[in-house]
Order: sequence, then structure tokens, then C-alpha cells
Amino acid sequence: MTFTTFEIEEKAGSDMLAFAKELFPLNRSLMGPDIRVSLMKFAAKHPEFELLMFETGSKLFDWEVPKEWIIKDAYIVHESGKKFASFAENNLHLMGYSEPVTKIISRDELLNKIHTHPFDKTAIPYVTSYYKKDWAFCMSAEQVESLPEGNFTVFIDSEYQDGELCLQEAVIKGSSDKEIFFSSYLCHPSMANNELSGPVLLSKLMDYVKSFEDRFYTYRFVLLPETIGSIAYLSMRRDLLKQNVVCGYNLTCVGDERAYSHVESRYGNNLSDTALRSALNNLPNVIHYSFLERGSDERQYCAPGIDLPVCTFCRSKFGEYPEYHSSKDDFSVVTEEGLAGSFNVIKTIIDSFEFGLFPRLNVLGEPQLGKRGLYPNTSKLYNGIHPAKLRMDIIAYCDGSSSIFDIANRLNVNLQVVLKEIKLLESHDLVSVSK
Amino acid sequence: MTFTTFEIEEKAGSDMLAFAKELFPLNRSLMGPDIRVSLMKFAAKHPEFELLMFETGSKLFDWEVPKEWIIKDAYIVHESGKKFASFAENNLHLMGYSEPVTKIISRDELLNKIHTHPFDKTAIPYVTSYYKKDWAFCMSAEQVESLPEGNFTVFIDSEYQDGELCLQEAVIKGSSDKEIFFSSYLCHPSMANNELSGPVLLSKLMDYVKSFEDRFYTYRFVLLPETIGSIAYLSMRRDLLKQNVVCGYNLTCVGDERAYSHVESRYGNNLSDTALRSALNNLPNVIHYSFLERGSDERQYCAPGIDLPVCTFCRSKFGEYPEYHSSKDDFSVVTEEGLAGSFNVIKTIIDSFEFGLFPRLNVLGEPQLGKRGLYPNTSKLYNGIHPAKLRMDIIAYCDGSSSIFDIANRLNVNLQVVLKEIKLLESHDLVSVSK
Amino acid sequence: MTFTTFEIEEKAGSDMLAFAKELFPLNRSLMGPDIRVSLMKFAAKHPEFELLMFETGSKLFDWEVPKEWIIKDAYIVHESGKKFASFAENNLHLMGYSEPVTKIISRDELLNKIHTHPFDKTAIPYVTSYYKKDWAFCMSAEQVESLPEGNFTVFIDSEYQDGELCLQEAVIKGSSDKEIFFSSYLCHPSMANNELSGPVLLSKLMDYVKSFEDRFYTYRFVLLPETIGSIAYLSMRRDLLKQNVVCGYNLTCVGDERAYSHVESRYGNNLSDTALRSALNNLPNVIHYSFLERGSDERQYCAPGIDLPVCTFCRSKFGEYPEYHSSKDDFSVVTEEGLAGSFNVIKTIIDSFEFGLFPRLNVLGEPQLGKRGLYPNTSKLYNGIHPAKLRMDIIAYCDGSSSIFDIANRLNVNLQVVLKEIKLLESHDLVSVSK
Repeated sequence: MTFTTFEIEEKAGSDMLAFAKELFPLNRSLMGPDIRVSLMKFAAKHPEFELLMFETGSKLFDWEVPKEWIIKDAYIVHESGKKFASFAENNLHLMGYSEPVTKIISRDELLNKIHTHPFDKTAIPYVTSYYKKDWAFCMSAEQVESLPEGNFTVFIDSEYQDGELCLQEAVIKGSSDKEIFFSSYLCHPSMANNELSGPVLLSKLMDYVKSFEDRFYTYRFVLLPETIGSIAYLSMRRDLLKQNVVCGYNLTCVGDERAYSHVESRYGNNLSDTALRSALNNLPNVIHYSFLERGSDERQYCAPGIDLPVCTFCRSKFGEYPEYHSSKDDFSVVTEEGLAGSFNVIKTIIDSFEFGLFPRLNVLGEPQLGKRGLYPNTSKLYNGIHPAKLRMDIIAYCDGSSSIFDIANRLNVNLQVVLKEIKLLESHDLVSVSK
Repeated sequence: MTFTTFEIEEKAGSDMLAFAKELFPLNRSLMGPDIRVSLMKFAAKHPEFELLMFETGSKLFDWEVPKEWIIKDAYIVHESGKKFASFAENNLHLMGYSEPVTKIISRDELLNKIHTHPFDKTAIPYVTSYYKKDWAFCMSAEQVESLPEGNFTVFIDSEYQDGELCLQEAVIKGSSDKEIFFSSYLCHPSMANNELSGPVLLSKLMDYVKSFEDRFYTYRFVLLPETIGSIAYLSMRRDLLKQNVVCGYNLTCVGDERAYSHVESRYGNNLSDTALRSALNNLPNVIHYSFLERGSDERQYCAPGIDLPVCTFCRSKFGEYPEYHSSKDDFSVVTEEGLAGSFNVIKTIIDSFEFGLFPRLNVLGEPQLGKRGLYPNTSKLYNGIHPAKLRMDIIAYCDGSSSIFDIANRLNVNLQVVLKEIKLLESHDLVSVSK
Repeated sequence: MTFTTFEIEEKAGSDMLAFAKELFPLNRSLMGPDIRVSLMKFAAKHPEFELLMFETGSKLFDWEVPKEWIIKDAYIVHESGKKFASFAENNLHLMGYSEPVTKIISRDELLNKIHTHPFDKTAIPYVTSYYKKDWAFCMSAEQVESLPEGNFTVFIDSEYQDGELCLQEAVIKGSSDKEIFFSSYLCHPSMANNELSGPVLLSKLMDYVKSFEDRFYTYRFVLLPETIGSIAYLSMRRDLLKQNVVCGYNLTCVGDERAYSHVESRYGNNLSDTALRSALNNLPNVIHYSFLERGSDERQYCAPGIDLPVCTFCRSKFGEYPEYHSSKDDFSVVTEEGLAGSFNVIKTIIDSFEFGLFPRLNVLGEPQLGKRGLYPNTSKLYNGIHPAKLRMDIIAYCDGSSSIFDIANRLNVNLQVVLKEIKLLESHDLVSVSK
């Protein structure tokens, strides 16, 4: 394979950010018209996407596809005529899947139907009730405080109808049936990091994979509503995925610059865990969360009986940054640099898989690096670390049993550095690499 | 099986304490009349007990059964007629297995034959010399200081005679030949925690196991003198035990309220270790001791070539509480609450075995708990821990390969909590449990 | 076998030191006349040594034997006639393998061809350039500062010629083909700890092994130039070594008194690692270095595809003491006590191998030690540790699966102590030991 140059990477951040901004205004939910619009925008970029649909009422493992939710308008009007919590203004003002209602209620009754943010007085929280019919509004605590005394008309013009749970899958074939798998979710309305950062990274990874002249692995990309979407997808593809997937990632909250996070698989030791750990070594503010801190689609991909070699990659993990699930999760959180950093992490993992995971030294004993210009010819004392120490350390573990990820983890060096060194050694015919 | 209600547990502490008080005055030793009396009191409660006897001189592995020790009276009399260290007053005043003696000796000579406590000036220490003929008295340091100048008559009316090492075994059959094994020891005279707490807990566990309408496991209970008793028992039952026992506990020092202790098996990783660890999670003041801190019959049950899946359960471990092996080990140390706490720990382990050790999720992917009322239907931000987090975490590891003990240990949750949750999940047909 | 008495050990330190002093003045290098002289001095003591030679130009794995370096004289003369950096005065003044040169150069040009020590202003550093033709002098920073203004004649009377890489091997046969392997290197000129301490220890170990009346293991000793010498040796003996060697050590920097160091094998867990760890337990200032801190011939013996059960033993590790690779590495660093301490460590490992690695208890249950005088007969409270605790702990792990090294490591006790106890237990027929 030929790796693309850095050109794509330089543009990667801005491309992803622009696409996320285009998607932001749509009122995504589990199902409904804006999910279809969102998916179509991805399919427009990547004709490889195929739409998969599951009709309302379909049984999916332990779950059942609900009805679609059609929302036209929603707001609260005070008897003075003053309007509050207008859905048209911010789609977070309405609890997702709220049932229709039109009635006049007192301020006290209204307060019982309003969700506020647990600690940020200026944020509108994101709340849903997919599986129990109910209605509610969401407002910032400051907005609630400004509600005048008196009665209010609450108005929600929504309806439920039979429809389809929609998700999209793209398979980019390689010469092998072995698959690298990426999943992200589309089901949240206007939030940037916890929703759109994942799908736009997935789209950029598709660009990257498609840019290879040839490739060894087959790459599978899916976009689906969280939880029920991955359950639906697994109910259809479990056997195939279990047979072919060697490594996969759920991509979510990958747009900020504050941290690099790894949410481990159930036992924290599959190939996706090891690879991600190595690609995060020595990056700033790396956090490894156990499976007990899970919360996204790793819940399904790593569930008992599913057990795919998948884990989750985030910058700041869902639930661990203050703007999470609120109106504050916007483009002050998600940045070009944040998205580009995430792209770089996953790109390095892909590059490693395509290059080959198991380097083995071609010579017995240490190689004579000096004659190849890979080692200083004068043997003397150094005041710090020997200039070829890392190279010699990598060579020491090119034993055919340690993967490139294992080597990076043992040496506590970033995967990118190890990959570069092993490519150099391979170009000197000192190591052979097997997949 | 049907579990008994909490009724038995409420009475458990007071029942055990009353029985321990009844047993306290008897002058138990390795062998001799009061051991027989003590054993008979257990057999009166549990007709399942069968007496096993090993005659003086019998070879038991590397050991030999000694003679019985018959002690009628013992004391020291000062030339003034004042009596000290009277066995009739406290049976700890005489070194166990002391040979007979009647002679007049000087105060200095006497002091050489008196043991005192290494740090507690008011405690009479407990000392024995089973395997070398000798005699000595035991007194508190304060009592020794009060000995007047002058000569003393020392008088010990004891004799050795051929007899039997006695121990008792009861087998409560279940539908399986697989056994849960409990052992405790009877060989110490009037001490409460280090001696009687273990046997009375064992008796109460027999009540509990016998209360089941039916049971899966077979339960084996033994009462024996420490060390030589377990060696005798193993010399007779080793093959049977190695074939059938899946988990067992040596019960000792289980009556105080200060700690919960686990003395690990030789490598610290058998099923009894894992189960006990899980049953102690999150209790106050839990201490795990390595096998290098052993000191009771785990020494024999875990010896090379024996290797039963057994470890030792204590509240405060032998040797680790100040009253240990002295006249201070009385009912100020052992309490109803202390004994009841111990009962609860072992009861939870028994309940888990009977319920089944390996839960497996019946559905693929996460179950939809909301429709069963097991999960909140509104998805929103919580200020603390999600109310269904523990439930979801338990479900995540119901993979058929993690035992209920493993799950409790991985989640750092008490076994009782996990057992209750898994019973709830099983009642909803969400998990199946195998033994 | 019969172990020699302590006589040999008492003389060990002074013997080794005297031999090192005899070897010190020779100008060793990779190849050349003084290496031959050095090797002959060992062969004079041990006629078992056989010389192995590899001609200039021979291919050895990835390496090629260079030419021999013949050096007759070298110095710098100032235009005033004052002489500096005279090779005759200190053979470290000339960079090893310097090419011949005679020319007049300015002070500035000269400074570019002088190496100084990175932090010690009074030390002459040791520098070589085996594989690239170049020349240089080495001086202390203070000496360099004293160089006057003006021009200098640099004079190096050296030549390269076809010759042989020489190394020496001795095999002391035992009744088994299984081998214990020792390697040390000869290639540095006048330095004491990093060079001569290892070979003289190796020689003393040969004395020790040859002193046995009979022996179980076969012992193999090699002396060779570092790196290319071990590569040459492995290119000839790899298959044989892989078949027979069960444990081996590279011996280097074993002459000072400051620390005991272990440089681990590639994964840190072979038999040589375990054995050395146990022999270092509880010695003062023990340091375990991972393979990432390697630097001597463990680099070759543990290279991928070689993978011998070998690690490196040092007192202060190469590169970790201030005199390393400089004129300061002399007999103020290396002492009788330092060398004797090293001898004792390796002797204990040899003794353990010859005695047998896997003790197994001959009785079931704990043995009755009291009747053998190995346990106090009175059972009482102790203020500190029970006097037989260590003995009982060792017995507890005599299970046939834990080696004597494992037992020492688990109990955190020095191998010598465990070996002594197990010999005592064996003399009482309580344990059997297998090799």
C-alpha cells in the first residue's frame, strides 16, 4: 500500500469542523426525518454507504423498534403572551420523543415538567424519554427563574408514526476479509462533541482509507443511533462481524483538545485496547477508563455473547466534560485541532495494521547498525541517553511474538514513533513484518 | 432450594453466644474427658455427628497420637499456707499436659517454672507442652509479683493414660456429591474467641444448612483438636476430600466485632479465597493475610500434597488481638453481633453456591431494562452515580465465565449485593445461572 | 557432590584482586597482541581453555571480523617540545583503533580531535572507533586546558593487519549434559571494574567448580571481546547452547562494594533471572534493571532468535558509577571485598543447582518438627516472630512445583538462607530434592 502524504492531515481538521457545522442545526433523534437528512449528507460524500432499515415493531434481541417521532413545533407561552423554551430556537428545549400536548397549567405544574442542568445554571440540559410516553421541556436554571407568576400554555405539536430505524453501513474492501471496524452514532440533536465529532471523524477516516492505492484490510464503517442502533446492527451482522473483525473502535466525543481517552473493553485486553493504548502513549492528558466507566456503544459491542474486539476512543470522555449533554456542547468545545488530533491517533493505528503488526529481526544477534549509518561509529560516553537507544530497544523486541503495539507499550513510546523506526529498519532489510 | 427467612439470623447471634457460654468452663485439651463432654454437647444438637477415634500410639502421617492427659487438681502453696495458681479457679493456670509433681521448691526455682504474658501484666497466658514431658504454671505478671519470699509446694495431680484422640464429623447430603467443607477446632480450655466462637458458628451453619428443604451441595462439618486433629482426619479422609470438596473454610476467632479477616491458602487463589474475598468486600476493617501469616488448620488443609480448596475465616485473626491465648479471651471479646456478622458472611457464600455460581445473560446485547421497571425511563444527567449503574455493571459481566464471586470482586461490591441483584435478574428471566 | 569449605572463599577476594592487578597494564582491544597475552594468562591457570579464532573478514551473523590493530606509540608534541597524551603513559590517551597519523596542526584543529569526559574534569575518557577509520586522542579536561597556544605535532604509530578475533572457551564436564554458562569479556585496556573484575571472577568460579569431587551440571566458561566476540561465539555455538544451557550469566563490573545489580533478560523471567533475584534478596543496595537498561553481552545472549536463559550480574552496573569508562576505573573502585561478595552470590546459585532445585516434602500434612529438635516443644506466646517461622514457611512451599529460587523470592529471604534450611530438612529426611 502507499500511504497518503500529510496533505490530507493538514486539511483534516478544517474539513471535519466544516462538516460538523453543516450538520449541527438538524434535530436528530432515534428516528425521524432529520436522521434521514443527516445520513444522506454522509452518503453524498461516500456513495459506498448503504441504508439499512428496521421497521417500527421489529424485534431486535431484547428490544423493539419504537415509532418515529415527528416534531413540528413546541413552546411555552405565558398568559402575558411571552414565549419561552421555543423548540424553533433551540431543539434541546424539548425533551426528545415528547408526546403532543396543548394545555394551560399553573407555574407550579409547569415547573414539574421542566428539566434543568444539575450544576450549570446557564445550560439547557439534553433529556429524552424514548420508551415511555411523556412530555417535558428543558431550560436553563436562569431561564426557569425568569418565568413570571401566572398560567402558561404548553404546546407540543408532535406525533408518532410507524416508520423505520435507519442506519448506514459502508464496506471498503481490501485484499483480506479481515476487517477493521469503526462505529459512531447519530441520534442527538444540536450538540457538537457528543454527537457530531464522531461521525465527521468517521467520514474523514473513510477518505483516508479510500485514498490508499491498495489495502490489506477490509474497512467497515457504520453510523447509527446509539444503543438501539448498534443493537439493531448487531442483530443483523453479529456472525459476520465476529468472524471477520480483528479490531474496531466506537468513536465519540473526539472533538475537544483537553484529553485523550480510552474506554476499555470488558476485560481491557483485546487488540483494540492494546493498539489504542500504544497510539496514546506520551500524548498529553491520557486517561484509560475501565469498562465500568463505559456508556456508549462499547456497551453493545462488548456485551456478553457479542464480544467484538472493540473499545471506545474519545478526547474528553462523555460525562467527563462540563458541557456534556447540554446546550453548551457546541463549537467552543469542538475545534479543528481537537478533531485533527483524533484523526492522527486512529490514522496511526490504521497505518500500523496496513504495515504489519509483528516485526521480526532478520539477523541473529544484534545487527551492525553502524555500517548502515544507523548508529554512531564512535563509542564514547554520553551525558544523556544514547542516541540510538530507542532504535536498539525496538530491535530488541522485534522477536515475532511482540506486536508493534506491545513494543510501543513496553517501551512507553508512542506508536507513531515505533512505526516510523520499524519502517526505517524494514527499509534496511533488518526486520520483516507479518500481519 | 428454599432459603430460610431472616428469623434464623436474628436469633443466630444469641444462640451461638449462649452455647459458647455453656461450653466455656470445660477444660479441653488435645485429648481427655472434657473433650468428650464438649463433643457430646454438639452431638446432642446434631445427631448427624459421628465420633472418630484414633488410639494412643497410632501413626498419623508424620505424627503419633499421644496419651490422654487426666488432670484432677493443681496449685502452688506458699509455706504460709497461701494458695496460688489454682487450676480449680482457672484452668489456664496449669501448662497443658503438665506431668504430675509434688515437691517443695524455693521461690527462685518456682519462678523458672512459671510462664507470664509477654505484654499484659494482668493476663494469665495459655501454654501447652503436648509432646515433651514437663510441667509449669501460668500466672499473670501481677500475680507473680505478689508471690512472697520463702518456699513453695508445687502440686500437680495429673496422669497420662492410653486413650483416644476424638473428633467428630457430620455429613449433610445434598443432591450432588460435591462438598462444601467446614472445620473448626476444640482443644483449648476456657477461652472464648480462640476456640469456642468457631465451633458454635459451625453448629449454627449446620442448623442453617439443615433448614433447606432441599440442597444441591453436600455439606461436611468437622470438629477436632487443632493440628493433630486435622492431621488425623486427613490421614483418614484425604482421598475422599480431594475428590469431592469444592470449597471449604477453617473457622476460628469468629466472635469479635473488630475486623473481618481472611487467611489465604498457599497460593491465595483457590475458590474458597475468591468466595471469601467477595463476601468481605466493603465490610468494615477487612484484612487479607497471606499464607505466610497462617497459624491454624489451614496449615494442614493447604499443606503440600493435601492442597484442599480451603482457607481460614476469622474476625480478628489469631495472634492479632491482645487477648489472644490468655485469660482475657472471654465474653468481653466475643459478642452476639460479632458471631452474627460471621454467620452472615458464610451464609452468603453458602447461598451463592446453592443459587449457582456462573450467571449468563439470556439476551444478546444489553437487555432493555426499562420495560421491566429495572431502569429509569427518562435519560437525563445525574449529579452522582446513575441509579442503575450497579445493575448494568453486573449484567456486563454475566458472561458465563465470571463467577458471582469474580463479579463481586471486579466491581468491589459485597457478594450479598451481587447475589440479590442476580436473583432479581433471574426472576425476570434475564440471566440463567449454572453451578 | 562435596562442597568446598570456606577456605577457598576467604582467599577468593585476594586471589581475584591480585590477578586483576597483573592484567591491568595490558592494552587490550577487540583484537591484537595484548588480547592474546591476556587470554594466555587465563589459559595458564586453566588448561581447560581452548582458543577459538575467527579470521579478519569472516562473516559472523550481521557482522564481519575487522583487522587487528597494532599500536606502537602515540602522543602529541607542542612546538615547544612539550609532550602530551602519551600512550606509553596511559593507554586510554589514544582512541581505540586509531589510524596512523603524523602531522602538524593548530591548537584549534587539535581540540577537534580530543575527547574529554562529559562531567569529570580530571578523568581521561575511554573512546573507541572500531568500525570507522578515524583517529583521536583522549585527555582530561584539565589536561586540555593546559595545552599551550601554538602548533602541535600529532603522532600515532599504528597499523591494521589481517589477523584473528580470539576468544577462549572451557567446558568442565558434569554427569549431565545440562549446562550452566558464564561469559565475561576482555577487550578494554587499563580499566579495573569494567573489564577485569568479570574475567577474574569467572576464573575463580572455575576454581570452585573444578574443586567439586563430582558435579551434576556441565559448566561452560567463555572469555571474549564484548559484542563482536559474543556474536562470533554465538555464530559457532548457538545450537549447542540453546540445547544445553539451563542458566547463565554475563559477568561484568563485579568488583566494587556499592551495590548488587541484576540486568534482566528480555522478558525478565527466565531461570537465570529468578535465581539471581533470589541470591540478591536482602543484600544491601540491590537494583534490578530491566532489559531496557541493558548494555553488555546480555544484548546478544538474549537477542531475538538467540534467547538463551541468561542475564547479567554486576555490583554497580556499567554506566551507573562515576568512574565508568575512564581512567578513574582503577583499584580504588575494585576491592577484595567487592569481588568476594560477587563470588559469594554466584557460588550460592551454583550450590543450589548442584543441590537440586525442587524440594518436595516427604510427609503429608506438616511434619512433627518437635520430635526432631527442629521446633520448640513448648507452645507459648512470643513477643516477636516465632523461632521456627522461617522453617515452617519454607516447608509450606516444598511442594515440588516451587523451585528453591521461587521459595526464596516468595519469602523474600536470601537464597543462601533457604538453601541452608533445605539442606537441614533433607538431612532429616523431611524433603527430597530433584534437579
